[in-house]
Amino acid sequence: MAKDVESDHPPPAFSAKDYHDPPPAPLFDLDELTKWSFYRALIAEFIATLLFLYITVLTVIGYKSQTDPAACGGVGVLGIAWAFGGMIFILVYCTAGISGGHINPAVTFGLFLGRKVSLIRAVGYMAAQCLGAICGCGLVKAFQKSYYTRYGGGANELAAGYNKGTGLGAEIIGTFVLVYTVFSATDPKRSARDSHVPVLAPLPIGFAVFMVHLATIPITGTGINPARSFGAAVIYNKDKAWDDQWIFWVGPFIGAAIAAFYHQFVLRAAAIKALGSFRSNA
Amino acid sequence: MAKDVESDHPPPAFSAKDYHDPPPAPLFDLDELTKWSFYRALIAEFIATLLFLYITVLTVIGYKSQTDPAACGGVGVLGIAWAFGGMIFILVYCTAGISGGHINPAVTFGLFLGRKVSLIRAVGYMAAQCLGAICGCGLVKAFQKSYYTRYGGGANELAAGYNKGTGLGAEIIGTFVLVYTVFSATDPKRSARDSHVPVLAPLPIGFAVFMVHLATIPITGTGINPARSFGAAVIYNKDKAWDDQWIFWVGPFIGAAIAAFYHQFVLRAAAIKALGSFRSNA
Amino acid sequence: MAKDVESDHPPPAFSAKDYHDPPPAPLFDLDELTKWSFYRALIAEFIATLLFLYITVLTVIGYKSQTDPAACGGVGVLGIAWAFGGMIFILVYCTAGISGGHINPAVTFGLFLGRKVSLIRAVGYMAAQCLGAICGCGLVKAFQKSYYTRYGGGANELAAGYNKGTGLGAEIIGTFVLVYTVFSATDPKRSARDSHVPVLAPLPIGFAVFMVHLATIPITGTGINPARSFGAAVIYNKDKAWDDQWIFWVGPFIGAAIAAFYHQFVLRAAAIKALGSFRSNA
Amino acid sequence: MAKDVESDHPPPAFSAKDYHDPPPAPLFDLDELTKWSFYRALIAEFIATLLFLYITVLTVIGYKSQTDPAACGGVGVLGIAWAFGGMIFILVYCTAGISGGHINPAVTFGLFLGRKVSLIRAVGYMAAQCLGAICGCGLVKAFQKSYYTRYGGGANELAAGYNKGTGLGAEIIGTFVLVYTVFSATDPKRSARDSHVPVLAPLPIGFAVFMVHLATIPITGTGINPARSFGAAVIYNKDKAWDDQWIFWVGPFIGAAIAAFYHQFVLRAAAIKALGSFRSNA
Repeated sequence: MAKDVESDHPPPAFSAKDYHDPPPAPLFDLDELTKWSFYRALIAEFIATLLFLYITVLTVIGYKSQTDPAACGGVGVLGIAWAFGGMIFILVYCTAGISGGHINPAVTFGLFLGRKVSLIRAVGYMAAQCLGAICGCGLVKAFQKSYYTRYGGGANELAAGYNKGTGLGAEIIGTFVLVYTVFSATDPKRSARDSHVPVLAPLPIGFAVFMVHLATIPITGTGINPARSFGAAVIYNKDKAWDDQWIFWVGPFIGAAIAAFYHQFVLRAAAIKALGSFRSNA
Repeated sequence: MAKDVESDHPPPAFSAKDYHDPPPAPLFDLDELTKWSFYRALIAEFIATLLFLYITVLTVIGYKSQTDPAACGGVGVLGIAWAFGGMIFILVYCTAGISGGHINPAVTFGLFLGRKVSLIRAVGYMAAQCLGAICGCGLVKAFQKSYYTRYGGGANELAAGYNKGTGLGAEIIGTFVLVYTVFSATDPKRSARDSHVPVLAPLPIGFAVFMVHLATIPITGTGINPARSFGAAVIYNKDKAWDDQWIFWVGPFIGAAIAAFYHQFVLRAAAIKALGSFRSNA
Repeated sequence: MAKDVESDHPPPAFSAKDYHDPPPAPLFDLDELTKWSFYRALIAEFIATLLFLYITVLTVIGYKSQTDPAACGGVGVLGIAWAFGGMIFILVYCTAGISGGHINPAVTFGLFLGRKVSLIRAVGYMAAQCLGAICGCGLVKAFQKSYYTRYGGGANELAAGYNKGTGLGAEIIGTFVLVYTVFSATDPKRSARDSHVPVLAPLPIGFAVFMVHLATIPITGTGINPARSFGAAVIYNKDKAWDDQWIFWVGPFIGAAIAAFYHQFVLRAAAIKALGSFRSNA
Repeated sequence: MAKDVESDHPPPAFSAKDYHDPPPAPLFDLDELTKWSFYRALIAEFIATLLFLYITVLTVIGYKSQTDPAACGGVGVLGIAWAFGGMIFILVYCTAGISGGHINPAVTFGLFLGRKVSLIRAVGYMAAQCLGAICGCGLVKAFQKSYYTRYGGGANELAAGYNKGTGLGAEIIGTFVLVYTVFSATDPKRSARDSHVPVLAPLPIGFAVFMVHLATIPITGTGINPARSFGAAVIYNKDKAWDDQWIFWVGPFIGAAIAAFYHQFVLRAAAIKALGSFRSNA
């Protein structure tokens, strides 16, 4: 499915680049703290994560509360997967220009490792995302008093019959799929080649979330977003959700780190560029 | 999910703008009344809302009338959510160039508050939308005589077990998601940065409608569009639908107002720009 | 959902056009018959309609043949609607540059009324489409010998409990939605305003087909494409399918004619432009 | 559904071309073996096929293991079809710029026949794809020990009641739909006419896979990708899967060859251009 001719006849490596790699983001950029755009981005991440949890957990609870099995009531697991993927699509679309549209601490962590955001911004985003997730789940609990606790509160827990290693593995690979898509969609090399791809970026990112939910809802309920798992656990607040909570932080962060490494050092060949080893062959 | 580099290293605030904010629409623009394009826009809104209600309510009734539960007949709640979201996608796509593609009094109200349309146009649109919705539901009743009333006529009502506050809250937040997406998709700042986004605008707007339906069909049947709720109530014409009708006007209008406020005063920072407070720090 | 600012502040009507209306296609253009591109277009329409019927009718039969209701086997009515809409999306995408991507005699008829194609081309396309549809259904019958006839052969028939007027009305409005979307997507005025919309055109056209199927499968099985109804009837060849066949030709052709009229005379205001009545007010 | 005016009034054939056909790829290009970009492409194909099988087979197994039929648990056949189509969408999107995004030996074979890739690259890609598919299925088996073998391991097998000819036919036509879409999406003639289509290319390609799965899951489980069938057979390792394995290599390769022939010799008219027969009439 050769997307363009360039990829079949690769140009001489690393020469005559038509794209521009932005300089790595500084680790500490205190200057950010004086700008309105920084606080606006925190607000946007907070609101976006709130809306994400509100819509998706409401869908989960509403699906389970429709107890008329004969009519196949409810939207099904497929509808739940659409809710997660579709919300990421529209929220990334809406907030990309304000905050970069992370809505997920694992994505923020991956982009921090790729030196796309500063440490201050990364920490601020993660705090805003967790706070937003708690508020979103709180809204669902307020709206669905009678069903919220009975139907598990949308919390991520390891399903019966799966051990912790499997859950951790599922979270690692799932987050890898998501963050790999994010890096691919926002690669400046891609933008240079056809400047219209960023426009489409929210769609494959949303689909990546949709796909991972189809595959791993039966195993962990699908986290791949520590803020989503944390917010649901805070509001649901049962032992099982807290016991498994570490899986939904460690797994996504490892997956995001592998994706950042894969993109920067294998696909973009940062390591090899540094060594200059293949260049002489080109 | 940093969409572009700009968002991570924000430019100095409010200077060297590469975009152009159109002047606010006048409140009264009597000149509009002399132009064919104004009446053409009313016709387009009328036809679009008619088609919207025709397809979606027919889907709802058809789904409920397939009474063979063993075969999982019907398209399910997921199919109904697709019908609403998908119709908004194609109708916004088709009418955007003629009338702006509102198809929803709450959207018209939000864009009026954001000074994107004049008062005369806003009132005309809302009337055309309500009339179109009534005709669309009337067509469904004519086609589905035997099932229409038995299956609730597609009217929005508060489901058993939810109080009015919950219904109102669900409508407010649902409409916020929709109108926030509309403002994000049509922001001239976004257009300046990459001029191709408006092309995609109908897709996230349609998805926003799809998402909100997935989440709130079990609570209110999902209004977030006063014309849709009003048209169905007129044709169905039962007490319960009229008793709850105010929720489907007050909720969406409050949600649209909050979205307009959030976009104009927080994300676009209109208030702060006026005060000039942060500018000196930039 | 104002797509761009232009639509809210319409420019003076009919002046300083930045777009170019192509001249109407000639009724008879014998010169076409000497060109390879004409025959290539016929082949493309034949193959596309064949693939369209093959995939969609196979989905219908496969869905019905999965007789394990407890497992909710099969893709459901929602899956069938996706099959029809999704195939139109990819086939219009693939053949748009070769034949215009009609794949439907009603679309060809609408574009002929709008003077977009010559009479010779219109007749040739319709013949190729009907032939392709017969071959596509024949393949399904060859592959699904045991189930094809038992499960209705994918033929369009009026469902029990609906009279012929309802079926005709459903076909008229359904085809109107489709052909209205086709005209909107291919309007040269739209292309001039933002030249990237044609790229997206196959997506809303596919969604229009998807939506109409969601709404009217319970009534007529959804035709809105005479070649699809004719091909299935030829291979299935039962009285009921032939008795109702006229509905699936008359309905779509009326719907396409109304859509062509609506687009050309209301939205594009061809009549008023001719009379010049509003121009003096502008 | 005329996509642009050009297609209705075809320009004089074969003259004043505004596009550029790249020269055919050499059969043997040993120079490729010295470039990092070649090995990077192999890694990208390996990882993409691994992720493809991991997500899709996990979805298949998870769907079947949800044994609560009353609740319509699981994502259904529709969800499985989405998993296959959606993964191809995001993986083609992510790897198009690195390897061309084949992820399928049949696609690689088709593009090799169309002289888009060299023989060395084609063989390398196929090996990487098969290896990735085995690893992806292995991961699923490791994660789903208790269910993997019981639920068929996601292997492609001919369903009961269908003979080998039907299965082969279904694979041939299904792969034809996919590879025809790939050729249409990557045609340089299309790119020249509107340079934005390549951006959209992954979406119709993903939808083509989605459609074929809707139609042929009941017959063969849908292969149309020899690496997918081979990887699942290696890990599942039962007689039936190996007995039918040849269908899932011969079928897709024949289908890809027909698509390459159809695109190059009918739609692009390579044969006729060579003969010059119609040119004099133009």
